[in-house]
Parts: sequence; C-alpha cells; structure tokens
Amino acid sequence: MEDVVIRTLEKVQLRDPVLIEGLPGVGNVGKLAADYLRDQLKAKPLATIYSKFFPPQVYVSEEGIIRLVSNDLHYWKGPASSPRDVLVLGGDYQGISPEGQYEITQRVLDYCHDLGVREVFTLAGFAQGRVVDEPRVLGAATNAQLVETMKKFGVVFSRNDPGGGLIGASGLFLGLGRLFGMEGVCLMGETSGYFVDPRSAEAVLKVLSKILHIDVDFTALEAKAHEVDRIAQKIHEAEGRSTEGTPSSGPTPREDLGYIG
Amino acid sequence: MEDVVIRTLEKVQLRDPVLIEGLPGVGNVGKLAADYLRDQLKAKPLATIYSKFFPPQVYVSEEGIIRLVSNDLHYWKGPASSPRDVLVLGGDYQGISPEGQYEITQRVLDYCHDLGVREVFTLAGFAQGRVVDEPRVLGAATNAQLVETMKKFGVVFSRNDPGGGLIGASGLFLGLGRLFGMEGVCLMGETSGYFVDPRSAEAVLKVLSKILHIDVDFTALEAKAHEVDRIAQKIHEAEGRSTEGTPSSGPTPREDLGYIG
Amino acid sequence: MEDVVIRTLEKVQLRDPVLIEGLPGVGNVGKLAADYLRDQLKAKPLATIYSKFFPPQVYVSEEGIIRLVSNDLHYWKGPASSPRDVLVLGGDYQGISPEGQYEITQRVLDYCHDLGVREVFTLAGFAQGRVVDEPRVLGAATNAQLVETMKKFGVVFSRNDPGGGLIGASGLFLGLGRLFGMEGVCLMGETSGYFVDPRSAEAVLKVLSKILHIDVDFTALEAKAHEVDRIAQKIHEAEGRSTEGTPSSGPTPREDLGYIG
Amino acid sequence: MEDVVIRTLEKVQLRDPVLIEGLPGVGNVGKLAADYLRDQLKAKPLATIYSKFFPPQVYVSEEGIIRLVSNDLHYWKGPASSPRDVLVLGGDYQGISPEGQYEITQRVLDYCHDLGVREVFTLAGFAQGRVVDEPRVLGAATNAQLVETMKKFGVVFSRNDPGGGLIGASGLFLGLGRLFGMEGVCLMGETSGYFVDPRSAEAVLKVLSKILHIDVDFTALEAKAHEVDRIAQKIHEAEGRSTEGTPSSGPTPREDLGYIG
Repeated sequence: MEDVVIRTLEKVQLRDPVLIEGLPGVGNVGKLAADYLRDQLKAKPLATIYSKFFPPQVYVSEEGIIRLVSNDLHYWKGPASSPRDVLVLGGDYQGISPEGQYEITQRVLDYCHDLGVREVFTLAGFAQGRVVDEPRVLGAATNAQLVETMKKFGVVFSRNDPGGGLIGASGLFLGLGRLFGMEGVCLMGETSGYFVDPRSAEAVLKVLSKILHIDVDFTALEAKAHEVDRIAQKIHEAEGRSTEGTPSSGPTPREDLGYIG
Repeated sequence: MEDVVIRTLEKVQLRDPVLIEGLPGVGNVGKLAADYLRDQLKAKPLATIYSKFFPPQVYVSEEGIIRLVSNDLHYWKGPASSPRDVLVLGGDYQGISPEGQYEITQRVLDYCHDLGVREVFTLAGFAQGRVVDEPRVLGAATNAQLVETMKKFGVVFSRNDPGGGLIGASGLFLGLGRLFGMEGVCLMGETSGYFVDPRSAEAVLKVLSKILHIDVDFTALEAKAHEVDRIAQKIHEAEGRSTEGTPSSGPTPREDLGYIG
Repeated sequence: MEDVVIRTLEKVQLRDPVLIEGLPGVGNVGKLAADYLRDQLKAKPLATIYSKFFPPQVYVSEEGIIRLVSNDLHYWKGPASSPRDVLVLGGDYQGISPEGQYEITQRVLDYCHDLGVREVFTLAGFAQGRVVDEPRVLGAATNAQLVETMKKFGVVFSRNDPGGGLIGASGLFLGLGRLFGMEGVCLMGETSGYFVDPRSAEAVLKVLSKILHIDVDFTALEAKAHEVDRIAQKIHEAEGRSTEGTPSSGPTPREDLGYIG
Repeated sequence: MEDVVIRTLEKVQLRDPVLIEGLPGVGNVGKLAADYLRDQLKAKPLATIYSKFFPPQVYVSEEGIIRLVSNDLHYWKGPASSPRDVLVLGGDYQGISPEGQYEITQRVLDYCHDLGVREVFTLAGFAQGRVVDEPRVLGAATNAQLVETMKKFGVVFSRNDPGGGLIGASGLFLGLGRLFGMEGVCLMGETSGYFVDPRSAEAVLKVLSKILHIDVDFTALEAKAHEVDRIAQKIHEAEGRSTEGTPSSGPTPREDLGYIG
C-alpha cells in the first residue's frame, strides 16, 4: 500500500486557506484546541488520512462500529466578509516512527499546498513540569515578521524556550512547510505536562481566534477545564486524607522503631 | 524482494466467498478457531503468503523437513445448496512491525478482493484478566446493520468493550477492508489471556458456524478444551501441595517472627 | 542506494555449483567452518555484498586500511574429475533487522541462481547450553530424500531438535531458497553456545567434505580447537584457585554463620 | 518524500575539491573541527540536506525563528595559487538508524562526486576512556600510500586502534566512498569520551590544515579549550571539597574497618 493514503471526501474551492494543525501531544493541548475549533466552526470533513505509520489499530464506537485510526482534515468556509477559509487537521495519532512523522507531514503538506495553503498554525502544549495557573502562549515562527506580528497578539517569544527545539508534528509542519514555500507559527500553551489541559488549549485558541478574526464561544471548553480542575482537586484531597492516618514511607517508620527501644 | 509474496497454489472460481481470518493472538483463540474450521471443512490450500515482515525463521517438522514461516489461505466450496464459499486465512505469525501489519493485511485484502471477497469475519480472543468459565462472544462490526444481525446470533456488543479498540490483524482486516469496499465483523471470545483457550475458540466458532449455516463437529475441539482444563487443574493442585508445607511469602513469616518474642 | 549492492569481482562459468553458507551465529560454528573451507580450497573472490542492513561500520586492518563491512562470495573450481564447483558465502554480519535478513538472503539467492546454483548447504551451531565433548551434527533439509541421504553421512535428525525452528540466515537460505527452486540442507554442529567452537565447526566440515567429496586438511582447525581448549582449561583452573581460599557466595557463608552461635 | 532531500543553494564550479566531514560524535571532536574550519575559511553555504532519517525536529533560534534539523555543505574557493577547493560537511545529527546512515552518506557522496570530489577527510574523536592531556591524532585510510603520506604529517597508525573498527559517518564516508572511486583518510583526535573536546578538535585540525596547506588561526579554538579546562577544573575542585569530609567508596572504608579491630 502507499505509505500514506489520503481519501478526499469532498472537492472544495477554498479562499487563501490557512491550515491549523492540532494532533495528540503534550497535555493534548494541540488536539483539544483544534478539535474544539473544528466543532465550534462546524467545519465539514474534507479528507481522511490513513497510514502504515499509524498503529495497526481500529477504534470501536459505543454502538460497536469499527473505525480505522486516522488523521482528518475539516474545512470551514468563512462568511463572505472574511478574507480566508480554514482547514483543521486533527486525528488519533502522530506517526509512530521518525520516518513516519516525516512521510505523513510531507504528504499532508503536499495535499494542502494543492488546496492553496500558504500559511500554517500548529498548536501544541509546552511542558513546564509544574502546575501552571495562568498559562502563557509561547511562540516560534518561520520568519522575523511573523514573530513581531505574533507579539502583538500576546504571544511570548522566550530567548531560552523551547531550548531543545520542537519534536513532532507541530515543529515538522513548519520546518517541512518551508520546503513548500509555506510560512507559519507554532503556538504552545504552557501546561504542567502531567494532565490533559483544556485551560491551556483555551489560552492557545483565544490567541488563534484573535489572529484569524474568528468568533469562538469558549463556554464548553471552560466547562471542561472546570471539570478537570474538579477531578484534580478531588485527587488532591483524597491524597491528603489517605496520608493523614497512615505514616508515609519516609523517616516516620524509623521513629516508630525508635519507640521500641 | 517484494514486501509480501503471495504464491497461488490453485486457480479457483469462488461463489460470493466470505473471508475468515484467524491468526495468532490473545489466547490463540482466533488461530485455534480458524485452524479447526479449516480442518473440519477439509478446506484446500489456495495460496501461501511470505513476507519480510514475518520473522526470518523456518520451522522444522518431526521428519526434519524445513518450512518457511507463512500465512496461508485455504478455500472450501460449499454444497450446491449453499449460497457461498469460504476462505480461511491462518498462519504462523502476524506481521512483526506496525508497517508490516498494514502491508500484509493490505496485500491479502487486495488478493481476496480479486477472488470476489466482499465480507470478512475476523476471529480473536478478548483478554479479561480473570478465569472465564463460560466465554461470551463479543463483537464489533463495520456497520450498524451487521451489529443488529450479529446480536440475533448471540454476539454481545458492549458499550465499553473493547475500550481501547482492537490492535492487530483482527481489527486491521476490517478497518482496511472498508477501503476495499468490504464489510465485516470481529468475533472476540472472552478468555483469561493467560493460556491458549480452545473453549473460547469453540464459543467463537459456534457463533460463526450458525452465521454461515455450516455444520461443524466440535468433538475434537471439546477434547482439546478438556485436555487444557486437565492440565490447568494439575498445575492448580501442584501449586496447592507445594504451598501446604512451606509458608508463603505473605504475612506468615511475620507471624513466625512474632513467635520468636 | 540499493538495499543490497552486489559487486562482481570476476565473471566465471561454474559447473553445477553448490552454495555453502556460513555466517556469524551461535558459537560462530558456521562462519568458522565456511571460512576454513574457503581458505583450504584457496577459493577465489567472486563478489562482495554491501547492504544498508549491515551496521554502518568499517573495519581497520593492522596496516590502517579501511574496509566496509560486507558479505563475500568465493568460488572454487574442482578438478576436472569433480562433478561440481563450490561457492562459499561468508562475511562480517548477518542482516541486523528481520527485513534486512530477508532482503539480503533474497538478493544473494537471486545472484547465485543466475550462477546456476540449485543446491544449498547452510552451516550453523546448535546451542545445547552445556559443554559438548563430542559434537554431533544435527540436520534439517528441504525434502525427505535429502534427509535420508544425509543420515547416511552420519547427520542426526532429531524428532525434537531444533524445536523452535531455525532463526537467521541458515534457515532463511533454505526457506527462501525453495522459492528459487533450490533444495538444501542445514548442518548444525552441537556446541555449548558460550564460546566460539572450532571443534564443532570441524565436525560440521568433516560431514560436509564427505558429502561433497572434497579432501580437507583439518590440521589447522584442530590446532585452533586445541588452543580454545587450552584457554578454557586455564580459565577453569584460575576459577578453581580463586575460589579455594574465599568461600563462594553459596551455602558456605551460612555454615560460617552457624559457627558464630 | 524522498528519503534524503538535497537543496542546492548556489551552483558552483570547484577545482579538484576535497570533502571534509565533521558530524556530531565522540567528544563532538569532528563537528567542532569542521565547524571551526568552515567559520575560519568563511566558507559559503552550498547545499542543505534534509532527511526522514534525522529526528522529526526543528530548532528555534533566540529570536524565535524555526529551522528544520539538517546537514549542510559549505564550500571554500582557495586562492588562485592553491591547487584545490574545499567542501565542508557539518550538521545537527547523523542519521538515527543504520539504514539512515547508509542512505544519507550514499546520497551526499553521490552529490559530492558530481561536484568533482575524489578525496575525503573525515574528522572524529577516539574515546580513550581516560583524560588525555596531549591528544594524538590517530588515522585510518583507504590505501597504503595514503597511510604513508599521513605518517609524515604526524598521524599515528596504531596496530590495535581502533580495534572494533569505526562506526558511523566517519567510517561510512570512507567505506562507501570507495564505491564511488574516492580515496580518503579518517583523522581521529584522542579524547576522554566524557566531554566535548575542543583541544582534541584543535589537534585534528592542525594536522588537516598542514595536509591541505591552509592557514588556520587557532586563537578562538584555543580560547574554547581553555574555557572547557576551566570548567573541568572547577568541577574537579567542587568534587574535592564535597568529598573531603566523607571518605570515598574506594579502599578507605576497608582501612577504616581495619581500625575497628
């Protein structure tokens, strides 16, 4: 089979379309943001992407229906007043090998280039390794002018972050995109890296919606963020209770031993 | 060499053939069921499938004869009264890499499509992580109508199982099969996941034989199930005896220590 | 680059050539035997095989000269009275991935088929996990007639060995060879599996030279076997001395502890 | 996408160009030397090499600009009096799989062959596993004449080093280079293997610059070497202080135990 199979579901003409990529990754920030945008815009399915570089896996719906793992392109035609249409790339997995990452990204970029895409926004999480109460949105871009533009939208360009660069689809869509003559920005929402993080996704999407002049209703995403907060709080409390009565496995036992004497 | 080599052993014309897949996997349920069906039907060899995605291995028979690891297609021509013929896919291994799984499945589906296959049944085990006395047969299918039909044959469609989807050939033959315009069902026999499980294979095959209106004599498979039961019982008893005299590594030693005081 | 590159060093016409394969493996038995045969026959270089499925490595000679890792074919033209010529395949490595094993074996078989090869002998070690004083030569073959012929040469065909089949080049050259219409035998010298084993290689080569009606002088190989014996003996003695004074970590310490009381 | 993509940035005519390879590796000696030579020569960018055998990664500059990981060729046109021009190959990574190493090396050699390259120098570190105060430059070459020539420049050809051969780009560029009719030398600076080692890079580059009749100002590289020395010294002193009070885990404890008696 072809390494990457792209099945077009509908032929469309798009006006200067911008590609938004959000695949599973750190805190699932990119995927949460892209899926939410797709749902809010009621974007329509355009193409399904299958690949031997995804796991050999099918998902089963609650009704018992099977679906092969994939990535998916949805499109949104803005109102006549809006200058450009939007493509959203989401999916179940990133490619599971380095070669797979390159192959899938290259094929999707090629496909999107044919649809007229010249600009890409990739959405991702940036793991801080600590709880982040008010996530900032960090950025990286393909040229200096985009960096300046992004700063006006509150995107933070940090001298040291991300120090080791970006690994995976969010970096590769920009890095390989340049070989297709595309420019682009990676928007990274700060996140702990320990949980899925709708609040970080919201921060990213708020910046993106301003950049693209799209109105997004954040009610449902905020509800999801509160739900995650609530669960995290419960876990926190449960941990507190469970350690109250029982001494931890630290120095305490030795103190107990001390009492024996 | 070609990634997948399919050697046709006999050219045949088949009437609306249905493909039954049963390769090694959880509890070897699928393979046991497919091999037993093939033997009971006295299905004839149709094609041998070699691939560089199988291990670089040959088996040696008791007579010292070498055989390269493979998958194999057998065919069964039903009686004139029967509306359709049967293809059984079995073998030594599934592809040993994700890419290999995709490549082999795609090539076999392509080959079967040329033979007229439009419907696929994949047979598998579903690991419950506990002893299962009366294995149910769980299902997943490519469309809602098949789900309803399967329910009439006693197949269980559970809202939550299999939660993570299906990984490997049994899922992929259905997921990729849809790209060939094939519909299909995965029949999963419940099993502990710790042993090969002929009883679970029997449960799966009983459902399948009803669906396909095929008479199957289960005597030999039941004998195999009893044999496995007998061995399991012996192991159980042996464990019981060996722990009778010696205290287990659980709380007992601490009690012993208690007597020292 | 091509996955496998075969550089022909000399164009030759061979009479019904038989291929002898001996690559690195268990106890290095196959490689020792094939290299020794090549040297004794003064076989001439025919072709060098490079592949991206070998490690990305060069060897450096004592003179400082670099050589890319490879497999190599040498040929020997028997005397006019001899019915057939001999090809010996040796080298630094087997393919380092399953796919690589298949690709290299298939390409070499294809090349040898063009040279007229219709019969293959593969040489290997069979790990017994214990010291083997008088190594037997076990066999596996592609057809029943070859099994019978081999038995006359003292080759042992064991009902249970090798139970899990053969993994690697020695099996694959026979298994894939059949797809090229070649028949063949694997000759496995028993060996401990812990050391390189010239004595096992000698046992294998003695059988092979009888089968092929080739006179081989075993003096140098026996010297090497004695050398290995001598080193093994020294290690054995050294271990004996070092444990004389110091109690081993077995039951002795507990006995010592017993004296404390 | 192609496995390896080479983007030519400038079309140039070179006079009998020699290729200098220095990619990341042991002590980063090769990369340090090649990058320093490129900078000192003010060599100009000739081509960028992308590959799916590199990690799927982009680097982000301090200004926030993204760059896909790559290897890079720079060229230097010597003065009219100089007989030959120079190509320098550097980059972020070697190929991350054995196949990738072969593919990238083969493609770059093919490209350089078209540019007229017939001689290659590869630069590397040779890990001694101990601190090396005055690093020697070890060599390996593709023919005996080059070995003799190199000896005159102080390159050491050791009977036993490197015993296991060379693994990675520095060996492969020579080993595969021979298939392109290229001759060449690997220059290996001795290094501990624990740190990046500008001093070893300097030793290598001093030999190379003599061979190529190129004047190189080593001031900046020496400054970097001093900086590394200074850091190493600080670490050494810090370790000294921290272990002053506590006896090390060497022979001392046993001496202490001796005093108990």
